[in-house]
Amino acid sequence: MNKLKIPAVPSIRRLPSYMYIIRQAEAEGQEFISGTVIAEELHLEAIQVRKDLAITGIIGKPKKGYPIKALIDAIENFLGWNTVRKAIIVGAGSLGTALAGYQEFKSHGLSIVAAFDSDPGKIGKTIHDVPVFSIDFIAEKIKELNPVIALLTLPSSEAQAVADNIVKAGIDVFWNFTNVKIKVPPHVLVEKEDLTSGYAMLGVMMNTRDAQ
Amino acid sequence: MNKLKIPAVPSIRRLPSYMYIIRQAEAEGQEFISGTVIAEELHLEAIQVRKDLAITGIIGKPKKGYPIKALIDAIENFLGWNTVRKAIIVGAGSLGTALAGYQEFKSHGLSIVAAFDSDPGKIGKTIHDVPVFSIDFIAEKIKELNPVIALLTLPSSEAQAVADNIVKAGIDVFWNFTNVKIKVPPHVLVEKEDLTSGYAMLGVMMNTRDAQ
Repeated sequence: MNKLKIPAVPSIRRLPSYMYIIRQAEAEGQEFISGTVIAEELHLEAIQVRKDLAITGIIGKPKKGYPIKALIDAIENFLGWNTVRKAIIVGAGSLGTALAGYQEFKSHGLSIVAAFDSDPGKIGKTIHDVPVFSIDFIAEKIKELNPVIALLTLPSSEAQAVADNIVKAGIDVFWNFTNVKIKVPPHVLVEKEDLTSGYAMLGVMMNTRDAQ
Repeated sequence: MNKLKIPAVPSIRRLPSYMYIIRQAEAEGQEFISGTVIAEELHLEAIQVRKDLAITGIIGKPKKGYPIKALIDAIENFLGWNTVRKAIIVGAGSLGTALAGYQEFKSHGLSIVAAFDSDPGKIGKTIHDVPVFSIDFIAEKIKELNPVIALLTLPSSEAQAVADNIVKAGIDVFWNFTNVKIKVPPHVLVEKEDLTSGYAMLGVMMNTRDAQ
């Protein structure tokens, strides 16, 4: 397991949802946005929103809230979303294809430069303009393209063996969409994605409503 | 916006990631798991994990931790994951296809009974055994199949108009994977999914590491 200490993980995870509300306010021509407005949109407490935003170094003004442009800059800088990072997708199935075409990633600096698969029917084709190469040549391609992140969207049963090869080829950051926890050397960063988090919220919302 | 008050939203969102660790411990034959073990796996504080788990009504035992079987029951009951809920996927593109095949949903009671699309090339086919129907017949199919949740994976530009039709046909719970916020009547529940949350974590992890 990675020993890197990241403070305020829950706050970091909420920042993108704030960004979405803030960008909408910007698109509507507003100059300021309050923590209360963001909180109401997202079923959170205003004090929580203000505390979360404070980790980016920005403080709101009483009554007016946060200046939107400065707020966006602060969040993007904190998240590194103003930096372009090259990534590869490992597994060109439906989830890999969906992620390759996800516009939000592009606008936040994630540049997907290649995808890999073992299916001869996929190799040599593209998924949303991203070329698909044979997984047998992943080490060579990593050395050629110098990506810094690998998104794992391959079958869970193959995840560990392929991750081992990717680490050997020099990538030390994984975004793991499979159902298994991968074992990696201590210097390697892994973020595991769980699509069931939103489903948990839905379940509780439905239970709460039905109990009323 | 929906007026339903849901307490402890961040705690709810973390429960599925705890479940994943707890299930692994169960698979390894363990009978108890401590909040500290879960916390270490997920870069969280142990006190946070214990507080989160307490919302399901379960309390750990000093030194031993939580009895795993009772803990799984408590979480599943709290999230309604022991109830089968019928759902439809609206938009049979790559994300819709990925979600249709996502095993985790099936094991948590989400039963996807139909998908809808406007592309004649997709209508009449299946995505992971889920039949794809024409979006023109969505109202009729909803009345026939009685799903309770609609997953929106269609292009953002079409989301609002289609959501309006779905509400009229009687569905009042949405899981929205598009980039737009949909406007719905007050009784309708909407959970908006944001795949950039994990990318935010990755960004901060990389920034933190690079600053060391």
